[in-house]
Amino acid sequence: MSKFWSPEVRELTPYVPGEQPRERLIKLNTNENPYPPAPAVEAALRDFSADHLRRYPDPTSFALREALAEELGVDTAQVFVGNGSDEVLALAFQAFFRQPRPLSMPTISYSFYPVYCRLYGVERRTHPLDDQWRVDLDAFPEEAGGVIFANPNAPTGHGHGREAIARLLERITDSVVLVDEAYVDFGGESAAPLVERFPNLLVTGTFSKSRSLAGLRLGYAVGSRELIEGLERVKDSFNSYPVDSLASALGIASLGDHEHFDACREAVITTRERTRVRLETLGFQVLPSQTNFLLVSHPAFDAAQLFVGLRERGVLVRHFNTDALRDHLRISIGTDDEMDSLIEALESLCR
Amino acid sequence: MSKFWSPEVRELTPYVPGEQPRERLIKLNTNENPYPPAPAVEAALRDFSADHLRRYPDPTSFALREALAEELGVDTAQVFVGNGSDEVLALAFQAFFRQPRPLSMPTISYSFYPVYCRLYGVERRTHPLDDQWRVDLDAFPEEAGGVIFANPNAPTGHGHGREAIARLLERITDSVVLVDEAYVDFGGESAAPLVERFPNLLVTGTFSKSRSLAGLRLGYAVGSRELIEGLERVKDSFNSYPVDSLASALGIASLGDHEHFDACREAVITTRERTRVRLETLGFQVLPSQTNFLLVSHPAFDAAQLFVGLRERGVLVRHFNTDALRDHLRISIGTDDEMDSLIEALESLCR
Repeated sequence: MSKFWSPEVRELTPYVPGEQPRERLIKLNTNENPYPPAPAVEAALRDFSADHLRRYPDPTSFALREALAEELGVDTAQVFVGNGSDEVLALAFQAFFRQPRPLSMPTISYSFYPVYCRLYGVERRTHPLDDQWRVDLDAFPEEAGGVIFANPNAPTGHGHGREAIARLLERITDSVVLVDEAYVDFGGESAAPLVERFPNLLVTGTFSKSRSLAGLRLGYAVGSRELIEGLERVKDSFNSYPVDSLASALGIASLGDHEHFDACREAVITTRERTRVRLETLGFQVLPSQTNFLLVSHPAFDAAQLFVGLRERGVLVRHFNTDALRDHLRISIGTDDEMDSLIEALESLCR
Repeated sequence: MSKFWSPEVRELTPYVPGEQPRERLIKLNTNENPYPPAPAVEAALRDFSADHLRRYPDPTSFALREALAEELGVDTAQVFVGNGSDEVLALAFQAFFRQPRPLSMPTISYSFYPVYCRLYGVERRTHPLDDQWRVDLDAFPEEAGGVIFANPNAPTGHGHGREAIARLLERITDSVVLVDEAYVDFGGESAAPLVERFPNLLVTGTFSKSRSLAGLRLGYAVGSRELIEGLERVKDSFNSYPVDSLASALGIASLGDHEHFDACREAVITTRERTRVRLETLGFQVLPSQTNFLLVSHPAFDAAQLFVGLRERGVLVRHFNTDALRDHLRISIGTDDEMDSLIEALESLCR
């Protein structure tokens, strides 16, 4: 505590990201992609001249937004980009969720949402998952000041289809519904095509997972022109140039390579299903997943102890020390070799 | 306007950065450096493997902060980094300036400060410059909720020495004094060595100007551990990874090259003084500058018309359409050749 801090800063409980260990570990704890970015990204990096960096970037990131718009089948004016989807989410909280009525979200979803609520003074209301740990879309009330959830959800892995999202949007029309699609490319169905029909739908996405660019910090939102303008107003009052020139060039290169993109996400999906079967054979309960991770629990073994045992065996997974998730581990999908090592370590721990 | 926006968003008046033109112009409007980044930056770019980008960056940016700490002669725990100094400033407003008492700032300084005040609901109190357009340090009141100014100031160019800043800090001890040193490397004197003495001093800096890395978005703050911790609390509630892996690697490379750094800033200073003399010969009034720009006015010619005339002749400078600055132009220092073109264009306009 310091007397120089703003009063609100004393109340903050920051988000804690997964560890970035310095020692060599099989890293299955932050949902990174085990495959490299598209070859076009490496080529763009080789082509980029450092001299270009002495100029400020285009504050509107027009070229990157244009490339995303083409990919998403919308107009460039319907796309917003930022320094990772965390920044895009933070700006959306400021732009849309500081409302007299509380923001609705699931009890279990991306744990950064309550952190943004505290930072921006947004009151929240939480709604339990259903009995199969799916987001209960029917629970979100019409009078909400806004709705946010990840779809597929994190860290549970289940995703609702586009039609279910459309039904939600037919019901909630007075506030912004933010669908966070960080994981959608691993088997989910994007709600992005619905932005033409529903002016209050904002869909966010990231280059961190399916595009193997977590280190580059690129995220985006797609929505109606009025929602994008709201985001731009906040962004232009915060940081004129949130996306640097290199990130923009490399992001555009990534979007151009569909073949690599599809091959990597299919490899992740195949490995995920193979891993799921093997975990079930070991007695784990594994939630169905449309993401690049699995949320698992074991009726006979303590999750926190398994976490420690795995780490001792050189495998890092994620354990959330909360009431709801204490019995679970979240395991990111790596290469087949990495998952073989995970299974081998679990075999020695679960006997 | 949209019914979906948070009420505060309707009241925002975003900052307007200098234009990034698409046509070929001599660009003297956004205080960019006319010289390339250090050769070590190009080398680091060539050495960087795209595969490294599939991992998240270190959320603490330890290596970059360590390199900065060595450069600034402080402990790593006294350094904070962000996605450009604009982001660092925005986080500082949230961390320190949301106070019951208003924030004090000069009437003329970086025009982003009032924008942050509106975004974060900070009340401000402004203090006129002195009769030579210098920041009037004696005007800032002891009871301020905080103090912020650029030193050297923008867009006026004058910088106070370290002793003057120390005297201010001997007087103002109850709130944070933020000294924004974006331009300090072009002849100013940094207050950074004072952070050991004054726990309420925060000094910010940028890689955009003297390090020719505006396109990379790297800024920093140096201060007491308690101030840095306040910034970290806000950052960790906003974006876990604001500095991407590439920016971090290139920033570290830049810090290692003192020879290039000194040669470029000396070249800018020499060209600035040469340009100042030539502008005075043309009848311009030129404020003394310790920055990479000159603020000028002409008793016989309208600044807005000169701006248009220069643009027609292929030279882009900055004109601020505010009561205080309407009679002035801000001219960034380019290469000698670029400044020759400026002078030539002005010779044809001012006859």
